[in-house]
Amino acid sequence: MKIVALAGGVGGAKLAHGLAQILPPEDLTVIVNTGDDFEHLGLAICPDLDTVCYTLAGLANPETGWGRAGETWQAMTNLKRLGASDWFNLGDQDLATHLERTRRLKAGQPLSRVTRDFCAAWGIRHAVLPMSDNPVRTMVDTDEGELPFQEYFVHRRCEPRVKGFRFAGVEVAAPAAGTREAILSADAVVICPSNPWVSIDPILHVLSLTPPSAPLSRNSGEGLGVRAVAVSPIIAGKTVKGPAAKMFAELGIEPSALAVASHYEKFLSGIVVDSLDSELAKQIRIPTLVTNTLMTSDAERARLAQETINFIGKLP
Amino acid sequence: MKIVALAGGVGGAKLAHGLAQILPPEDLTVIVNTGDDFEHLGLAICPDLDTVCYTLAGLANPETGWGRAGETWQAMTNLKRLGASDWFNLGDQDLATHLERTRRLKAGQPLSRVTRDFCAAWGIRHAVLPMSDNPVRTMVDTDEGELPFQEYFVHRRCEPRVKGFRFAGVEVAAPAAGTREAILSADAVVICPSNPWVSIDPILHVLSLTPPSAPLSRNSGEGLGVRAVAVSPIIAGKTVKGPAAKMFAELGIEPSALAVASHYEKFLSGIVVDSLDSELAKQIRIPTLVTNTLMTSDAERARLAQETINFIGKLP
Repeated sequence: MKIVALAGGVGGAKLAHGLAQILPPEDLTVIVNTGDDFEHLGLAICPDLDTVCYTLAGLANPETGWGRAGETWQAMTNLKRLGASDWFNLGDQDLATHLERTRRLKAGQPLSRVTRDFCAAWGIRHAVLPMSDNPVRTMVDTDEGELPFQEYFVHRRCEPRVKGFRFAGVEVAAPAAGTREAILSADAVVICPSNPWVSIDPILHVLSLTPPSAPLSRNSGEGLGVRAVAVSPIIAGKTVKGPAAKMFAELGIEPSALAVASHYEKFLSGIVVDSLDSELAKQIRIPTLVTNTLMTSDAERARLAQETINFIGKLP
Repeated sequence: MKIVALAGGVGGAKLAHGLAQILPPEDLTVIVNTGDDFEHLGLAICPDLDTVCYTLAGLANPETGWGRAGETWQAMTNLKRLGASDWFNLGDQDLATHLERTRRLKAGQPLSRVTRDFCAAWGIRHAVLPMSDNPVRTMVDTDEGELPFQEYFVHRRCEPRVKGFRFAGVEVAAPAAGTREAILSADAVVICPSNPWVSIDPILHVLSLTPPSAPLSRNSGEGLGVRAVAVSPIIAGKTVKGPAAKMFAELGIEPSALAVASHYEKFLSGIVVDSLDSELAKQIRIPTLVTNTLMTSDAERARLAQETINFIGKLP
């Protein structure tokens, strides 16, 4: 089965890793959110891309889910001493990624090319694509005004109350080369357990930009040329990590797997929800797989990926 | 006694540190060569400025003389893995300096301002000034063509045969704010034991650019408004570090303290040479101090600085 996975950061990376454990390279393409990207200390930083790549390469910090295993902080310690902005931590190993990516982007290489080369260097055999080679920047509308995503997420620790989102640049951002081709030739799209508002929606917006042939279009309401199945990032009303549940609540929607199903309902063929939500699952009107979705080990990632693929195979 | 020290890298930094140990902050200004500066991996790198500052701050690697004590190489290891250029090593601590400097320069801050702020952050109380806020780039004319300095020095390990030097940009580079004022109010200029061709000459060229009032002018032959004393970087025909002796030889001049005296003779009031050159010293026609110039410890740096100052005080 050929799968395209849409992923944001830590949760998405885990399921992408699960899929990569069970699918051969030619059968999996991971399309990653770049709405979280930003420039910081002169460096082009792509947090979700790096989290997905580090995870697939086995380089990720198992404690945090993001950043590098065995990371050190010598540069950051010294940056702080020089009075540099210190709200976004950059590890010494991680810095190499940002430095070389920044150099290549400035030399005119598209982000997808840089990502492909980095994946090769890191030994990643499955395709990882940024959603676009053009900048898309998620802006969070809050009760304190509009904030760039990392400003909201890291600097302000998701404290401001969310009122909405805007994906600056999305109108002119083209899907990265290979993304649409991957979707058109896939048997199914798996929406990883990432934040629907700020990880998955930016990808969907970018991929929907070329109607009428767009196979994955939230707005068409006409169904998809390819099946899409989501794994809920919300378990028993909470997120494992990140502000998705808080965002649902602040937008007036009770955070739940039901809310996730509803968020994607116009094009979703099925949804995977956690065992803790087995009662709630009865209210979901599309095919639903109830299973353990926590992914507390590499084996659990592969198990959830396999169950999701089996579920897709049995969809009507 | 108010002193201005002209310095390049390791040797210059050692004597500057000796002077800083015995002179109060208001009595010492170190003017540093920036002809070695270059852009690498998108970073603005100032090797001599950093060597001087790290040395004055007690942060320098005592083994190498350049770079940081207790340095780690996590970023560099990972840059290599990504296929980045690896002939110039950047330590993790050192990277912070280049990153924050690059960010500030791009934001429009002059290098002298950046250097002043960094010195304050590192606890350096004496004034350290780049020779210019404008780019000057030392180009080495060799039997393999003209090479940018770091390309010659680090990448090619000084192997190509030297035919001459060019300081690109020197025609339009203004002395950094404070450099001329420091010289005009100094009792003496100390030319540190740095490479005459590529560390000191660029400084002299920049500082000589504003005649007729230039107090330090190699070309005027009219003497100086302020005394200048050099400490020979050549001991018994060799350099402690770096290619100065090799350069003299390739330019057809026998490398020696005598050659150094001759190099600076138009404006030098006195010279300090090593005890190993006591016989040679008899041939030098200006006042000469013969002493141990190796500076193998912090105390030796201070001792040589004090002897140099005493020597200046006794000059006719």
